[in-house]
Amino acid sequence: MKNQWHQHQQRVHYQETDQMGVVHHANYVGWFEIGRTEMMRSVGIAYSDMEKLGLLLPVVNIDIQYRRPARYDEMVSIFTNIISFSAVRLEFEYEIRLLEGDSSSTNSDNKQTIEPYGKLLSKGKTKHMWVDQDWKPTRIDKVAPEVFSLLQEKFGNKEVNSKR
Amino acid sequence: MKNQWHQHQQRVHYQETDQMGVVHHANYVGWFEIGRTEMMRSVGIAYSDMEKLGLLLPVVNIDIQYRRPARYDEMVSIFTNIISFSAVRLEFEYEIRLLEGDSSSTNSDNKQTIEPYGKLLSKGKTKHMWVDQDWKPTRIDKVAPEVFSLLQEKFGNKEVNSKR
Amino acid sequence: MKNQWHQHQQRVHYQETDQMGVVHHANYVGWFEIGRTEMMRSVGIAYSDMEKLGLLLPVVNIDIQYRRPARYDEMVSIFTNIISFSAVRLEFEYEIRLLEGDSSSTNSDNKQTIEPYGKLLSKGKTKHMWVDQDWKPTRIDKVAPEVFSLLQEKFGNKEVNSKR
Amino acid sequence: MKNQWHQHQQRVHYQETDQMGVVHHANYVGWFEIGRTEMMRSVGIAYSDMEKLGLLLPVVNIDIQYRRPARYDEMVSIFTNIISFSAVRLEFEYEIRLLEGDSSSTNSDNKQTIEPYGKLLSKGKTKHMWVDQDWKPTRIDKVAPEVFSLLQEKFGNKEVNSKR
Repeated sequence: MKNQWHQHQQRVHYQETDQMGVVHHANYVGWFEIGRTEMMRSVGIAYSDMEKLGLLLPVVNIDIQYRRPARYDEMVSIFTNIISFSAVRLEFEYEIRLLEGDSSSTNSDNKQTIEPYGKLLSKGKTKHMWVDQDWKPTRIDKVAPEVFSLLQEKFGNKEVNSKR
Repeated sequence: MKNQWHQHQQRVHYQETDQMGVVHHANYVGWFEIGRTEMMRSVGIAYSDMEKLGLLLPVVNIDIQYRRPARYDEMVSIFTNIISFSAVRLEFEYEIRLLEGDSSSTNSDNKQTIEPYGKLLSKGKTKHMWVDQDWKPTRIDKVAPEVFSLLQEKFGNKEVNSKR
Repeated sequence: MKNQWHQHQQRVHYQETDQMGVVHHANYVGWFEIGRTEMMRSVGIAYSDMEKLGLLLPVVNIDIQYRRPARYDEMVSIFTNIISFSAVRLEFEYEIRLLEGDSSSTNSDNKQTIEPYGKLLSKGKTKHMWVDQDWKPTRIDKVAPEVFSLLQEKFGNKEVNSKR
Repeated sequence: MKNQWHQHQQRVHYQETDQMGVVHHANYVGWFEIGRTEMMRSVGIAYSDMEKLGLLLPVVNIDIQYRRPARYDEMVSIFTNIISFSAVRLEFEYEIRLLEGDSSSTNSDNKQTIEPYGKLLSKGKTKHMWVDQDWKPTRIDKVAPEVFSLLQEKFGNKEVNSKR
């Protein structure tokens, strides 16, 4: 439970490649976004519902380390975990891994796993802050207390002081 | 069998939206590409293998009609069918549809269906020709006869004269 | 004046290529969008101002014919023209061309020209309709008469009946 | 000369926005790529020529800090500088800034400047290593000595030991 990673599997599309014959490095930013969206959904927090509450979660920092390139038609797994959260911010980590042996399905349901597995292609982190429709920082424990409770319940050991 | 559509289901990603609050119209081009890739895979033709044989299948024409916008986080189905094929060319048709009632999984395995279903968002066609590594037109019945046989076996009633 | 094309020049970026070593075909949709945006700006209609008036101009149809691929770092010209317009709709045509001999600048100011020139890579058309914030069809002669007047003044011979 | 930044100006395109009404954060990765490509070109090193020599310059790390969002149709400047280089690697820094007061042209020629100016939207860094066609690390002073000489001539004070 302390280090519960979320796994989302997807195929590399042709459009994601560049003329080096590998996935263009910008696509990993979108893959991270898919990873955290599906992780949040799996704990009961649909980002689309957050926006309906007038809450936005823009990225304030992203860091990506590229180890090995991903290639066309490979089945890659996006592993996502929460590093820390408070009432005002959220921090995620990600690992993109290539699973040996092709799975039969093109896309898989989301899963939980203790540790990421497969060949590491890339890893990274994103930092986010909750803002309202006018991009003013906001406290999620005030605006959406039920969402904050869910985060505490699922990732309680990762809560940090909101002053940080 | 005559009108066997292939269905591939996927979620709309945040990055695919624009400031109109809907999916930017350019993304449907990539969705069509995913649709035909998965359809081909389902009949035993992996496009990645084609490229290893030195065969490319560039788009020579695309036509898209937009009826209703797709929106963030919706589960859309890409329905794909072959209109016609010969030894030198291939023509596909597509329908993007919104399924009523959310399915439980984020992405689904590929399926076959007699007719597309769900609310029609967009439809379109693409035309392709087989070329070699130097972009010279090539005959697939000569270069990859086993692939051509697969097309004939699965879509025999859609074969047209290669002179067309 | 009757067939006054607008020219916008830009470089092909690395990210726009795919592993075929050419520009991925989906990028032309974005290039057409840039072409019509700059053409409209050149006659005094900034699309960003239209949106401030609550007017949107979604694409209802796109058709692209691909003749020759564009390649990384090439300087391509997007030629744009209006085919027809009424109070409710707009139709554009486009030609993507490769200029022989590199120009000195990376990007050029917008120009007018009687006929497109250079090697033809791709051509296409888009159809649009004016809608309001709720995506209801709207008449631009009612909502933004000064914009409609500009269109009539610049492209008067291309006005068609709004019933069409 | 010690801190000579390269400036490249471009418009924000509609396709780059998302439903938050701002530029999606993934687009800055592509903007950085455009920035370093144009900076390299301005000192006589066309990346397209590097690839013809069999040299690739993949990204091994990217870090982006987002301060303020960029918006549709704004004219943004990509400021690029070299942090350090050796025979095996290269490190760039970037600042994306919004220039107050619209310039008349849509895109501007590239310029040199002592310091970046305008409102800071985002900043970041990328690290790269030179590899050959097989993605094996390679020494540019051996494979393309004239390119290495150009780097030394233009950015001599930024050369670091290749062991680093």
